[in-house]
Amino acid sequence: MSCPSAEVLRARAYLSRVAEPPSPALIALVDALGPVEAADRVRAADVPDLVAGETAARRTIDRSEADLAAAHAVGARLLVPEDPAWPHSALAACTLSGVATLAPPVALWVRGPRSAHELSDRAVAVVGARAATGYGTHLAGEFGAGLAAAGTTVVSGAAIGIDGAAHRGALAADGPTVAVLACGVDRAYPAGHATLLQRIAATGLVVSEYPPGSVPARHRFLVRNRLIAALGGGTVVVEAALRSGAQRTAIDTETLGRLVMAVPGPVTSGPSAGCHQLIRDGALLVTSVDDVLEAVGRLGVDLAPEPETAVRRTDGLGKAAALVHDALPAQGARDTRWLARESGVPPDAIRAALTELERRGLAQSRDGLWLLRAGGGVGG
Amino acid sequence: MSCPSAEVLRARAYLSRVAEPPSPALIALVDALGPVEAADRVRAADVPDLVAGETAARRTIDRSEADLAAAHAVGARLLVPEDPAWPHSALAACTLSGVATLAPPVALWVRGPRSAHELSDRAVAVVGARAATGYGTHLAGEFGAGLAAAGTTVVSGAAIGIDGAAHRGALAADGPTVAVLACGVDRAYPAGHATLLQRIAATGLVVSEYPPGSVPARHRFLVRNRLIAALGGGTVVVEAALRSGAQRTAIDTETLGRLVMAVPGPVTSGPSAGCHQLIRDGALLVTSVDDVLEAVGRLGVDLAPEPETAVRRTDGLGKAAALVHDALPAQGARDTRWLARESGVPPDAIRAALTELERRGLAQSRDGLWLLRAGGGVGG
Repeated sequence: MSCPSAEVLRARAYLSRVAEPPSPALIALVDALGPVEAADRVRAADVPDLVAGETAARRTIDRSEADLAAAHAVGARLLVPEDPAWPHSALAACTLSGVATLAPPVALWVRGPRSAHELSDRAVAVVGARAATGYGTHLAGEFGAGLAAAGTTVVSGAAIGIDGAAHRGALAADGPTVAVLACGVDRAYPAGHATLLQRIAATGLVVSEYPPGSVPARHRFLVRNRLIAALGGGTVVVEAALRSGAQRTAIDTETLGRLVMAVPGPVTSGPSAGCHQLIRDGALLVTSVDDVLEAVGRLGVDLAPEPETAVRRTDGLGKAAALVHDALPAQGARDTRWLARESGVPPDAIRAALTELERRGLAQSRDGLWLLRAGGGVGG
Repeated sequence: MSCPSAEVLRARAYLSRVAEPPSPALIALVDALGPVEAADRVRAADVPDLVAGETAARRTIDRSEADLAAAHAVGARLLVPEDPAWPHSALAACTLSGVATLAPPVALWVRGPRSAHELSDRAVAVVGARAATGYGTHLAGEFGAGLAAAGTTVVSGAAIGIDGAAHRGALAADGPTVAVLACGVDRAYPAGHATLLQRIAATGLVVSEYPPGSVPARHRFLVRNRLIAALGGGTVVVEAALRSGAQRTAIDTETLGRLVMAVPGPVTSGPSAGCHQLIRDGALLVTSVDDVLEAVGRLGVDLAPEPETAVRRTDGLGKAAALVHDALPAQGARDTRWLARESGVPPDAIRAALTELERRGLAQSRDGLWLLRAGGGVGG
């Protein structure tokens, strides 16, 4: 695939402003006619009614040259489906879902050195509440760093709270991270994250379907969330209020056929309530980076290690041996007859049980009488 | 059903000591022959091999009179299946499971004024770690009190930690609670819970399948757990280590066909790890007493109230109205043509959107120009 022509770039730049995303009818027209002819038809109002509905309000506005120049001025560029770096496989789920509100973007304005295609090949979205707790931001940072250290791209929305902590975690691990904005990539929103966005743009990618200068109108946050869900191979929700943008991202993730994961927290903590609701609704409960990698990773490569559990010396004992072990005195050896009564194990099975216990170092005999072996361990 | 005869009580008292529970072959024999004849056959060693295996070690020991007297001395009695207070429906699951290790008890030694049958009619088990955190014991107390206040019996194991907190919560709400012990009901174990056990025996029920004087050998805790699971209509695990008795109770609960519930906690807290594992394995995540009552309660009676969520003034707006609302200036009214361009809504749909916004008090017009209505609320 060669690089897109200037004509294609101008057409897609025009189309990216002419309709408010998501614009499923326009996308279908572009797929059918190609961007150059589709743009011409939109300008001429020579389009089906559904496309006209999406484009009538702005069809006479063509700022494509100015937008491309504005992007260039801040080190950004227009990424189009005709470019080898376009994340085709990640965004295919948008088209395949058949859901109009999840329609793919007509183009992406991107800032940063990395290829969206490569970054989304192995990526996980980490999202959550703006009003996060210390617990939540700590975990988001841990997940961001752990995923990045494992070579997984961390995708998020650059918001205050969980999003920012996830991005920072990935940056701290020198890993790639992608911020998907609800405004132009030339804007620093939230203002407090201006430096963070610069750091992301320096090593990863800042992405938006909105042309330069676009303001972060409220509905755009919800519309933007589908791209976070699509660019991640699965979504981890760290903290989320009961009704929140993060829950919306989770719904989009599920609709796109991707895995929704949620991190539990104290039931006394409001920002964990949305995560608990998601888990009740079927999201996978994850407690660690290993859990996430196991769930979204390639089979056989990222299997999480078994949790470490204490191994007891009595593990694997048969029922009779376990009963006799419980009955064995720590002091004052007893005969097999006494042990049979005390343990309830039949006399003819006592000998085999004691042999098993002796072999495992749990019992010892003295002159035909039996007692616990020191260090054999007794617990309540 | 009349009260059991002294002969039946003596026979079951003998049988309750002659085999170490669970003793599925003995239970089957008693079901087939009745307790009196079954006891005679066991004494005479005139039994099938499987029953002999369970009873050979202690068949010559008959302390039935002494055990009944010892129980009487501490205000306890022997509850047998021939008694109307026997919890037939709760324990039927043990038989129906067909699992040998979940066999029902041959009798129950009980201490307290209440009927096991009535208490188990509407009951929930609340269990968890001995090494509980403040978070866990706080929640166990809340669940115990909330369930008791709703008229639900709280069943637990009287252990230090979660169990004790659940019992105490129920007692604080003046509700019934059942403690199932792994030793005789005449013993105070753990010693630190002597007063708690007295309070439970004064208003609820202390229960054990082990005859008076029996010591709490380790395997008995695991065997006992099936009775906690059976007497509760479902089991709530509040905190549990990754490999623990509480997890075993959860497994028994599932095998008995009852609902396993688990309370999440911080992923940074070891005692919550077992709960998270249970949820990953299919346990229902519960965060409140309402969740539990909804899950185990009678359909239509205990439906949990919908969680309270903030209602926004823009809830339910159509897409066009939402887009126009986002575009409306807070100051400096604009015309419909400007609003169409800014919002991306087609000019012929702008008027309907503005009418909807005006009707809901979200927009106002001045001389044909439009702006946000004060108090209409804008968010990021």
